[in-house]
Amino acid sequence: MKALVYLGPGQKAVQERVKPSIQFPTDAIVKITKTTICGTDLHILKGDVATCAPGTILGHEGVGIIEEIGSSVGNFKIGDRVLISCITACGKCGYCRRQMYSHCINGGWILGNTIDGTQAEYVRIPYAETSLYPIPKGEDEEALVMLSDILPTGFECGVLNGKISPGSNVAIVGSGPIGLSALLSAQFYSPAKIIMIDLDDNRLEMAKKFGATHVINSSDGKTAQKLMEITNNIGVDTAIEAVGIGATFQICQDIIAPGGTIANIGVHGKPVDLHLETLWSKNISITTRLVDTSSTPMLLDVVVAKKIEPKNLITHHFKFDEILKAYETFGNAAKTNALKVIISN
Amino acid sequence: MKALVYLGPGQKAVQERVKPSIQFPTDAIVKITKTTICGTDLHILKGDVATCAPGTILGHEGVGIIEEIGSSVGNFKIGDRVLISCITACGKCGYCRRQMYSHCINGGWILGNTIDGTQAEYVRIPYAETSLYPIPKGEDEEALVMLSDILPTGFECGVLNGKISPGSNVAIVGSGPIGLSALLSAQFYSPAKIIMIDLDDNRLEMAKKFGATHVINSSDGKTAQKLMEITNNIGVDTAIEAVGIGATFQICQDIIAPGGTIANIGVHGKPVDLHLETLWSKNISITTRLVDTSSTPMLLDVVVAKKIEPKNLITHHFKFDEILKAYETFGNAAKTNALKVIISN
Amino acid sequence: MKALVYLGPGQKAVQERVKPSIQFPTDAIVKITKTTICGTDLHILKGDVATCAPGTILGHEGVGIIEEIGSSVGNFKIGDRVLISCITACGKCGYCRRQMYSHCINGGWILGNTIDGTQAEYVRIPYAETSLYPIPKGEDEEALVMLSDILPTGFECGVLNGKISPGSNVAIVGSGPIGLSALLSAQFYSPAKIIMIDLDDNRLEMAKKFGATHVINSSDGKTAQKLMEITNNIGVDTAIEAVGIGATFQICQDIIAPGGTIANIGVHGKPVDLHLETLWSKNISITTRLVDTSSTPMLLDVVVAKKIEPKNLITHHFKFDEILKAYETFGNAAKTNALKVIISN
Amino acid sequence: MKALVYLGPGQKAVQERVKPSIQFPTDAIVKITKTTICGTDLHILKGDVATCAPGTILGHEGVGIIEEIGSSVGNFKIGDRVLISCITACGKCGYCRRQMYSHCINGGWILGNTIDGTQAEYVRIPYAETSLYPIPKGEDEEALVMLSDILPTGFECGVLNGKISPGSNVAIVGSGPIGLSALLSAQFYSPAKIIMIDLDDNRLEMAKKFGATHVINSSDGKTAQKLMEITNNIGVDTAIEAVGIGATFQICQDIIAPGGTIANIGVHGKPVDLHLETLWSKNISITTRLVDTSSTPMLLDVVVAKKIEPKNLITHHFKFDEILKAYETFGNAAKTNALKVIISN
Repeated sequence: MKALVYLGPGQKAVQERVKPSIQFPTDAIVKITKTTICGTDLHILKGDVATCAPGTILGHEGVGIIEEIGSSVGNFKIGDRVLISCITACGKCGYCRRQMYSHCINGGWILGNTIDGTQAEYVRIPYAETSLYPIPKGEDEEALVMLSDILPTGFECGVLNGKISPGSNVAIVGSGPIGLSALLSAQFYSPAKIIMIDLDDNRLEMAKKFGATHVINSSDGKTAQKLMEITNNIGVDTAIEAVGIGATFQICQDIIAPGGTIANIGVHGKPVDLHLETLWSKNISITTRLVDTSSTPMLLDVVVAKKIEPKNLITHHFKFDEILKAYETFGNAAKTNALKVIISN
Repeated sequence: MKALVYLGPGQKAVQERVKPSIQFPTDAIVKITKTTICGTDLHILKGDVATCAPGTILGHEGVGIIEEIGSSVGNFKIGDRVLISCITACGKCGYCRRQMYSHCINGGWILGNTIDGTQAEYVRIPYAETSLYPIPKGEDEEALVMLSDILPTGFECGVLNGKISPGSNVAIVGSGPIGLSALLSAQFYSPAKIIMIDLDDNRLEMAKKFGATHVINSSDGKTAQKLMEITNNIGVDTAIEAVGIGATFQICQDIIAPGGTIANIGVHGKPVDLHLETLWSKNISITTRLVDTSSTPMLLDVVVAKKIEPKNLITHHFKFDEILKAYETFGNAAKTNALKVIISN
Repeated sequence: MKALVYLGPGQKAVQERVKPSIQFPTDAIVKITKTTICGTDLHILKGDVATCAPGTILGHEGVGIIEEIGSSVGNFKIGDRVLISCITACGKCGYCRRQMYSHCINGGWILGNTIDGTQAEYVRIPYAETSLYPIPKGEDEEALVMLSDILPTGFECGVLNGKISPGSNVAIVGSGPIGLSALLSAQFYSPAKIIMIDLDDNRLEMAKKFGATHVINSSDGKTAQKLMEITNNIGVDTAIEAVGIGATFQICQDIIAPGGTIANIGVHGKPVDLHLETLWSKNISITTRLVDTSSTPMLLDVVVAKKIEPKNLITHHFKFDEILKAYETFGNAAKTNALKVIISN
Repeated sequence: MKALVYLGPGQKAVQERVKPSIQFPTDAIVKITKTTICGTDLHILKGDVATCAPGTILGHEGVGIIEEIGSSVGNFKIGDRVLISCITACGKCGYCRRQMYSHCINGGWILGNTIDGTQAEYVRIPYAETSLYPIPKGEDEEALVMLSDILPTGFECGVLNGKISPGSNVAIVGSGPIGLSALLSAQFYSPAKIIMIDLDDNRLEMAKKFGATHVINSSDGKTAQKLMEITNNIGVDTAIEAVGIGATFQICQDIIAPGGTIANIGVHGKPVDLHLETLWSKNISITTRLVDTSSTPMLLDVVVAKKIEPKNLITHHFKFDEILKAYETFGNAAKTNALKVIISN
């Protein structure tokens, strides 16, 4: 089969690989119909993710059809259409028991990282019973690819951790795909104001279409001042960090109201300054989280109920044999305005 | 009346001052029977607290008897024995409505800071109805001085924010009065292990008497390693920072388990490094809080029910005319082993 | 001034009464501009509310202008436009401290019950600081009358107590004003399905316009069966009782899913059967609540943010001298399709 | 092997049965070392549990040693000492995902009910990975039999559902084994008062030894009056029903404070009267629950930490060949003062 393989820092190629087969009774083999590329794949390609060895097939998102099934997998059968979770959950360890699947001692984020991933014709999914979700009849499968990772990430790490509630004020720092997916799912809770902050006016325009009530271009260094004007000098109840650098985390500290929550989503490469000399008395919380995808069943319900249109996050389409072009498009989002790209088999 | 007055950095004196009088219908004048000294008073004396002007009477803790009462104070009468909260709450602003009294727009921590405090014969208490608590009959008033500040601080900022629960593992970094008060109140929730961390073996011995199940002297730099041995290499569910410097906050980051909470109590003077490059994916929370004293009624209930012995925090007693000696004793805790000192009028 | 006075079971009249005056420093006198009639007023008129003595001016809802103010009221001034809460909160008792204003030992529901109410030209509001809310500039005051009682009631007793969450399934039994206000505010949390149940097709049509995804006319006794078809034989996560009789409470018990919550809003006159012989093992909660109006500030925020249109609940308008006609219209809702009627001074 | 078999209403016998064998790759066969008898076993023998067919081996509690193991069971091996949960959890259905194992669509309470149970030499445990727990080294296995059912039942259905918190007031109606296990685990949260209510003075004496602060013999019909005296006429924050009849549920309704929770544990055979005519406005919650045993890992932690002594619930010991005598002793608790009996193989 064809697969997109990581070959070491800066290197990738489409290669012919052996089709995966069942290794454990809890496995399933899924024929991929649609997959996508994540910012994390770009991180791997930069050589930033030490756990991913050269030779690994990338990708941890996608939908497909069950091709083969292990002997102890009871809740799926061959031919079932399934959503692949980016997080593999054994379902039985202490972390899985409390739905912290991200830290599953037998799984977690392994797809396209420590084992072969979804940017291929087939993928082996360990612990299939608790790592795959049936696709509801009649649903747009392409849209559901957004539920593999990006929507649960925005929702769990940003919205849930950020404790967004009706009438509250929210700022989201970073208007890329992750920030926009937080923006989409923030609206489940009817906050009064959602203020989107970014350096790029195009992305801020996009944010307005996605439901932002206010936007701030942070390039002039006056973000906090502008935000304070919008919020009666109180700041926001929830500040979501969706970039992963010190400067954006700083903005969150500058704009958080007493009693508020800074919910970090961004993947950081370096320590940041935490201003406890002012924050120690401000009654705030700071949260971090690798997505657990514990919200996937709920997100499927809200998609079916049409409370959210995940496909709005999709900007480009490619066939699998164009996957290198897909990477190029996704990697140059500033030029291409790419959010999420769909790659079809 | 006699009062202990802050006279600028490094300077204090006992002075004769005019007895306070009712200024607003919501005020009460309280004759102080017992007061104490807080670490924050020492901070003021170092010149670290810009809001406290020279000339201010220090002190924000104490018990006493109502001497005079404003016209709109309905729930107290002259002669009532009362506990003074270190936090003044107007009871009607948005923050007070949600019991975040620390950020009361009309009060907060003002006693012995922006207005005259309790280290005197009399004190004026604004918003008396919501800033004083009746002393239950038959209770040891001296012990209740611990409920003005230190016990609610340990409990609210450390225990409640730290989400301590039955069977969980807790570390408290700093075995001074605040750390010990977190230790005492942590036991309300029956955690399995409470690991006390400090540089001073005397304080750690004290911690054992107060209920610590394990102690670690952190002077050899192997705290995290030792703690991991105690916790099966998982770390703690709750790490309470009760010192207020970068090194101790660092220990908290080193020992926190996935899904855990770092509850900061310490008053920090400088930014600290936050290691988001490792913590971003660890599903943790970090909390800060200035005590709200919203737990005071509950703490009074548990003291009456004998679930806790706050007087164990008291190590020394002085008469008011010995207050300078009391300061000396409290300020040299390393030598004197002082925890809390009681000053009686 | 003119006032609508309760004269004993079945009897009411518009009478000339003395304009109220300040009795306590915490009082305010409000000139009523808009008021309305509540189902509870009809209960009083039937003689069902023993606490309301003949001679009492009815009404506990309304907006107006501050006419006079007690000496200790600090957060309002004469001329301020205010929303009157149906619940009077002293702000300092134990119940008020935890925002359970409904059980305030000095207040609670007293307006138009144990003291004179709002169906008059002027009303005295005790504890004005914590029982009145400023009307945001530019807001439709008529719409805000819905925030005196009916919207917080639907929201707090139905939606909040019912723990409605994104993607969940909700049934509301009773499509009258209270049920519809629960329906409106349920949508703050993006449930997947909201199934409205009533005997009256007109009301169910109204419910569809207000956002119900499904309606069931319960007159054929097959409600549970129909609802189970809609919910894949699981039942609903939240069942809101908005009528107050045994039959409707029975429907809630028949349709609740394992793990679900029955949130009672209805005012009941008699005991109901609780089927613990089946429910004991079903992991459900049943909640009751007299509205606390603790959500009023939040509801004002969502109204200002246009997340909800409370004025859709208003069907009829009257001048104060037509108040008897207003009562007739409201009392014959089956015929007149009245939801809420506005009475203007 | 020998087994205690239900033979229809009123009939049971020790019979020779074929040793169970692995039927599914997720099964384990456990050699029972210690088991016990539950009130529910008596219910079955009365013919009250329709799902239990004659011929079923009774028992859903016990500890033992893994004798044989299915091919997909990864976290146990032959020879492991294990605690058997009374609830079988598949670990992958929607209910198991949210730790509501009691409603597992593939399991739930099936042991000694719809499949053969633990009152035998061997038992087959389905879904062993998520239905068995490793016994910590050095722990008293006999004491851990209390964690199969009775302790998690008292804790989850009574204490957790009842939201017991430090300083709160609690009443437990019924001082039998279940009530006492709620009493033991209530103390994890340091309530101020725990008032035990029963008809039997012996049981109330026992309750005092287990930590009750007050006891009331309810035989004179003045329970509510006596309790109100103890609680300053406020009532209790938590009322736990641990009997399962109308009269005891009525007591709970009579003594619950505004804002409180009635947590039902009792297995009811008939509907009860719910006094919504008074409770509708009292802001209370009523909860029901079949134990999920989701708290088992935590309970193991608190037992290891010596926060609780479960073996205090054990009053009698028998060899397996005396099991009929054990039933007699347990069934005549009023005479024998039996709480839990241990049956050893």
